[in-house]
Amino acid sequence: MLLKGRHDFRSDTITEPTEAMRRAMYEAEVGDSARGDDPTVAALEEEAAALLGKEAAMLVPSGTMANLVSLLTWVRRGEEVIAEHRAHVVMSEAGSLGGVVGAMVRTIVTPDGILRPEQVEAAVRAPSVLSPRTALLCIENTHNYAGGTVWSVEQVRAAAEAAHRHDVPVHMDGARIFNAAVALGVPAAELAAPVDSLMFCLSKGLSAPVGSLVLGTRAFVEEARKRRQMVGGAMRQAGVLAAAGLVAIRTMVERLAEDHQRARRLAQQLVGVPGIEVGPEPPSNMVMVDVRGTGLSAAEFGERLASGHNVWTLAVAPTVLRFVTHRHVDDSDVDQAARAIRAVAGSRRIGA
Amino acid sequence: MLLKGRHDFRSDTITEPTEAMRRAMYEAEVGDSARGDDPTVAALEEEAAALLGKEAAMLVPSGTMANLVSLLTWVRRGEEVIAEHRAHVVMSEAGSLGGVVGAMVRTIVTPDGILRPEQVEAAVRAPSVLSPRTALLCIENTHNYAGGTVWSVEQVRAAAEAAHRHDVPVHMDGARIFNAAVALGVPAAELAAPVDSLMFCLSKGLSAPVGSLVLGTRAFVEEARKRRQMVGGAMRQAGVLAAAGLVAIRTMVERLAEDHQRARRLAQQLVGVPGIEVGPEPPSNMVMVDVRGTGLSAAEFGERLASGHNVWTLAVAPTVLRFVTHRHVDDSDVDQAARAIRAVAGSRRIGA
Amino acid sequence: MLLKGRHDFRSDTITEPTEAMRRAMYEAEVGDSARGDDPTVAALEEEAAALLGKEAAMLVPSGTMANLVSLLTWVRRGEEVIAEHRAHVVMSEAGSLGGVVGAMVRTIVTPDGILRPEQVEAAVRAPSVLSPRTALLCIENTHNYAGGTVWSVEQVRAAAEAAHRHDVPVHMDGARIFNAAVALGVPAAELAAPVDSLMFCLSKGLSAPVGSLVLGTRAFVEEARKRRQMVGGAMRQAGVLAAAGLVAIRTMVERLAEDHQRARRLAQQLVGVPGIEVGPEPPSNMVMVDVRGTGLSAAEFGERLASGHNVWTLAVAPTVLRFVTHRHVDDSDVDQAARAIRAVAGSRRIGA
Amino acid sequence: MLLKGRHDFRSDTITEPTEAMRRAMYEAEVGDSARGDDPTVAALEEEAAALLGKEAAMLVPSGTMANLVSLLTWVRRGEEVIAEHRAHVVMSEAGSLGGVVGAMVRTIVTPDGILRPEQVEAAVRAPSVLSPRTALLCIENTHNYAGGTVWSVEQVRAAAEAAHRHDVPVHMDGARIFNAAVALGVPAAELAAPVDSLMFCLSKGLSAPVGSLVLGTRAFVEEARKRRQMVGGAMRQAGVLAAAGLVAIRTMVERLAEDHQRARRLAQQLVGVPGIEVGPEPPSNMVMVDVRGTGLSAAEFGERLASGHNVWTLAVAPTVLRFVTHRHVDDSDVDQAARAIRAVAGSRRIGA
Repeated sequence: MLLKGRHDFRSDTITEPTEAMRRAMYEAEVGDSARGDDPTVAALEEEAAALLGKEAAMLVPSGTMANLVSLLTWVRRGEEVIAEHRAHVVMSEAGSLGGVVGAMVRTIVTPDGILRPEQVEAAVRAPSVLSPRTALLCIENTHNYAGGTVWSVEQVRAAAEAAHRHDVPVHMDGARIFNAAVALGVPAAELAAPVDSLMFCLSKGLSAPVGSLVLGTRAFVEEARKRRQMVGGAMRQAGVLAAAGLVAIRTMVERLAEDHQRARRLAQQLVGVPGIEVGPEPPSNMVMVDVRGTGLSAAEFGERLASGHNVWTLAVAPTVLRFVTHRHVDDSDVDQAARAIRAVAGSRRIGA
Repeated sequence: MLLKGRHDFRSDTITEPTEAMRRAMYEAEVGDSARGDDPTVAALEEEAAALLGKEAAMLVPSGTMANLVSLLTWVRRGEEVIAEHRAHVVMSEAGSLGGVVGAMVRTIVTPDGILRPEQVEAAVRAPSVLSPRTALLCIENTHNYAGGTVWSVEQVRAAAEAAHRHDVPVHMDGARIFNAAVALGVPAAELAAPVDSLMFCLSKGLSAPVGSLVLGTRAFVEEARKRRQMVGGAMRQAGVLAAAGLVAIRTMVERLAEDHQRARRLAQQLVGVPGIEVGPEPPSNMVMVDVRGTGLSAAEFGERLASGHNVWTLAVAPTVLRFVTHRHVDDSDVDQAARAIRAVAGSRRIGA
Repeated sequence: MLLKGRHDFRSDTITEPTEAMRRAMYEAEVGDSARGDDPTVAALEEEAAALLGKEAAMLVPSGTMANLVSLLTWVRRGEEVIAEHRAHVVMSEAGSLGGVVGAMVRTIVTPDGILRPEQVEAAVRAPSVLSPRTALLCIENTHNYAGGTVWSVEQVRAAAEAAHRHDVPVHMDGARIFNAAVALGVPAAELAAPVDSLMFCLSKGLSAPVGSLVLGTRAFVEEARKRRQMVGGAMRQAGVLAAAGLVAIRTMVERLAEDHQRARRLAQQLVGVPGIEVGPEPPSNMVMVDVRGTGLSAAEFGERLASGHNVWTLAVAPTVLRFVTHRHVDDSDVDQAARAIRAVAGSRRIGA
Repeated sequence: MLLKGRHDFRSDTITEPTEAMRRAMYEAEVGDSARGDDPTVAALEEEAAALLGKEAAMLVPSGTMANLVSLLTWVRRGEEVIAEHRAHVVMSEAGSLGGVVGAMVRTIVTPDGILRPEQVEAAVRAPSVLSPRTALLCIENTHNYAGGTVWSVEQVRAAAEAAHRHDVPVHMDGARIFNAAVALGVPAAELAAPVDSLMFCLSKGLSAPVGSLVLGTRAFVEEARKRRQMVGGAMRQAGVLAAAGLVAIRTMVERLAEDHQRARRLAQQLVGVPGIEVGPEPPSNMVMVDVRGTGLSAAEFGERLASGHNVWTLAVAPTVLRFVTHRHVDDSDVDQAARAIRAVAGSRRIGA
């Protein structure tokens, strides 16, 4: 629900369906997709698989579930998953990796969310009756909490090859894989090629209301259907959601470039603002703003932006605010956010 | 996807959204419901809670998930759930009761799916370091695999009181609670009053495309939100689904009486058909047809109905076919089904 | 701790190590068995495997753990185990089947604990995305809560073949397998031959202090070692326990016949006692005494036996007391128990 | 099984029971401890609780199980445990933290295994529907894979207070808590006072054959008994093990000082050996030897020590060997180990 006058940078998850999506939902041909009867879901799954260069795809209601059923399919209880320490599967899936999958996680610390092949190899445990068996490498592209960082095709390939050398399969949390593809100027399928399974979201930057896809070999997706049922992810006339999803993957990918451009626009206006650090050039549609130099916590800074300037953002670390650009913020919202940040930083320094 | 000429009695889960629902979805005011921002989801949750007489409600994408998050909230690993032996949570949720909840199930055999209070009390385990602790009674109303049987208010109350005497809370799988309420001519809230939590489905007879609601105290639903996140059930602009759901609970409940009438119409036409047994008067929108006397298995009988007469149904036991009435079958479909059943039963006996 | 004057029929688990066992423990050659360094453990595992006709064996600290690691090895989360409804894995392992294994259980009701092949086949679920996959048949011989009932070789074979026809492996809870073998007059290996894995206990009738063995193919036991580590069952200088275990399997098996004779002696003295029912001829070392006819509950009856006559027993159902014979009860204890039962039953009827 | 001529520094877990322990086992008064009937187990549990200053204690067959049942008691599925990244619960318990407990682990990297209070506080997650709830801080004293490092009373207190400020309870893996106490010259109870639960091992340096104790409040231990049953840790006549355990805690604690002295003796002889790094003064009974400078891997170096010099050790990292001193290595074994290390390091450099 977009509120008049609010400049909302909290997340691209707030994007609302377009008129074309609403119309597609209205007109969708549907069926009981839990029985495999929904033609629009089937069309979306087929088109998504083709787009990502995988054999098969399956619709689920969220990105969190897409990761969950993928992990449930790859990992047995007591086995271990390698992931970056700020990965979404570690931070923001309510502990399902341990609580539902029954897995251990071996976290790797990186500056940018991108695991180097030597880190992957070092994290694979040697076989032993004592150690958990390494069952999966899970990578995230773009990497959300590292600031929307983009793994290049070469980086994905190197990490995947490192895992494969030890017979460890690779899952990619590609919630924002199209942001990565657009930023790199490559087809998403090239990023997907080296991994054994992946998921991507129809919501977020692509603006569909609900839904994510799990992709992999036909056999993998067949197994994953059973896990989807186990966690309650089989939906009935999901064609209404798939219809919007088809609009999303057909028409909303290219425009992500605008979001990236606006992220850079915001970052550029913050260079040199006293007390504010914006790190490197924003790699996709996120700007991580460290407010440590202002003496304020991220929560305090964010509160002042909201109450004083109607600029909404999210604290993702004690002194870091994340600004996400998306279809509902334009250049003037960006400029307003930059002004607001300068104002809060400035007032603070005066008051300090 | 309703196919021209098909008489589809497989399930009421195949019902498609009405024109009013499609319009409501088209026009829905939405927001990021995973952040609590979706006004239509909020409206649905509030209205559903009021309708069932509970403090709070939460939207999830399926009935299976609604049961799952309820069980996850009530039950710790290694504890035990009491349920009828053909309960949906036992038969058709892909083992989530054990695999996700980590619970044991103590199943009770009944003829009609309705647990008597003395059965409940006998199933509660005495405290012991050896036994699993009894953590929940789970009842199902209407009871699907028992043939859509209806628990009366008194029966629900008696079972719930039996459980409560041992400090065991009660969850009701009310996927088709409105069928029960309409069959009994009581408000659904009266059936919900004795239990501590329940769920119901917007799809099935009510015809909304996707979604179920979990209901209970405010504290229970708050806890359940965390479990919903853990299994990936938090959706983004779910207002599109909630909009259809509001139409469902406001306008589709009373018409369930028609489905019940048609179930009786079907059963009556099958009385006396040689080789066919239809049990007692259909209690709601299901007719269980035992074909044992024809010498055919349910699967074989069903195959002949489909291929020879375009009548679709579901085998739910080795010799039992389930016919479900719903918005997409009218009197002539019912009559055609009855004719087809007589024909298959008759041809069989001739050939035998 | 055997108390002077107490006639203790609660269980054969109370048997204490013999002098020969104590001496063997004192002298045991040991090593770190978690590293595979303990020669006495190795000797026991080898000798046990040979005795039961299996490729390999593994020592664990309890029968409950022996079942647990077996199930963990055969079953993935969300899959289903078929078992008799009073099986030890269902009743008395604190819910580990659900809580640790993550399995469902499909319980079958029998009068005697013995599953008929047609029951097994009916309990195997047809493949479906909705149903839990049937992963294991678990049988129990002798069957404890059914009263120490003995499966014949033919019955074991029939049940196992029924399972194998559906590619379902079979585990035998053979905690008291030697009671069965002695009762039947066959080598235990004949009872073990049809099943894919089994366990038996060194304690109970065999009188060793601690320990059970898991047996199966070499590959199965190798996998099971990892599960043993996961539940904390790898012990250090377990050779002290294995030394007693070797004495148990070498010298204590044949004398189980005495326990069986004494169970019959007890039952015979109870025939015709008013208010008391003792069912059929005791099949092994247990006598199930139904006291319903006395108007007392099993707990009350047991309490009177203990306080008034120093006869100790166990209530295993609301009106059923279980008397277990073992190395520490002789004929005079049996006769004293019979006298006490008659006395309590008689006094009750007078007072009634 | 100690082999003549072998100098075995692999672990203190290889220590064998003393003559006094064997005699105590031979003479032990026992009972069915799963029923609470074993007087020697009761005596050990009482004496251990008093020694550590806790209300109650419970015997289990291993340190891994002691940690497991403690975690099972504190943590619900999907919640998170904070631990050092090389903690035994993370590295060497076959993934039970995820696979049995269903927990997440948040690992903290430290140089010495000792978590600083600010690290603890930073690792506690803020309440959120997205994040796993922080349910437990698990510390390890002495810290095995960090090289037997000792937390001071002050360090334990500081970490525990940091956790308690956020209502997070604290469990101490005190497998070698008596090594820490002896190294510090304080009663073990002082180290145990700040934590809510702990475990220690009777085997390892104390030389009992089998067994560990879980300690905490009476309520905690009562809860833990149910979890012990769930993982199969309830043993029958465990008094035979407890008898040895009583000898261990009564007579074997003080002599740990000798092991520490020998660890220092070994380290001192390695100072200045080319290619070898021995880090700081060994804090307890472990010496971590980094062989990186020799160009050999730890595995290769260890293999040469064993085959060429009959000196046995363990590779705990790619270039690190761990030497553990214990009751079965004396000064001459230490000197032989030092000579062997110098020889292997020297030969390597010559050959390089």
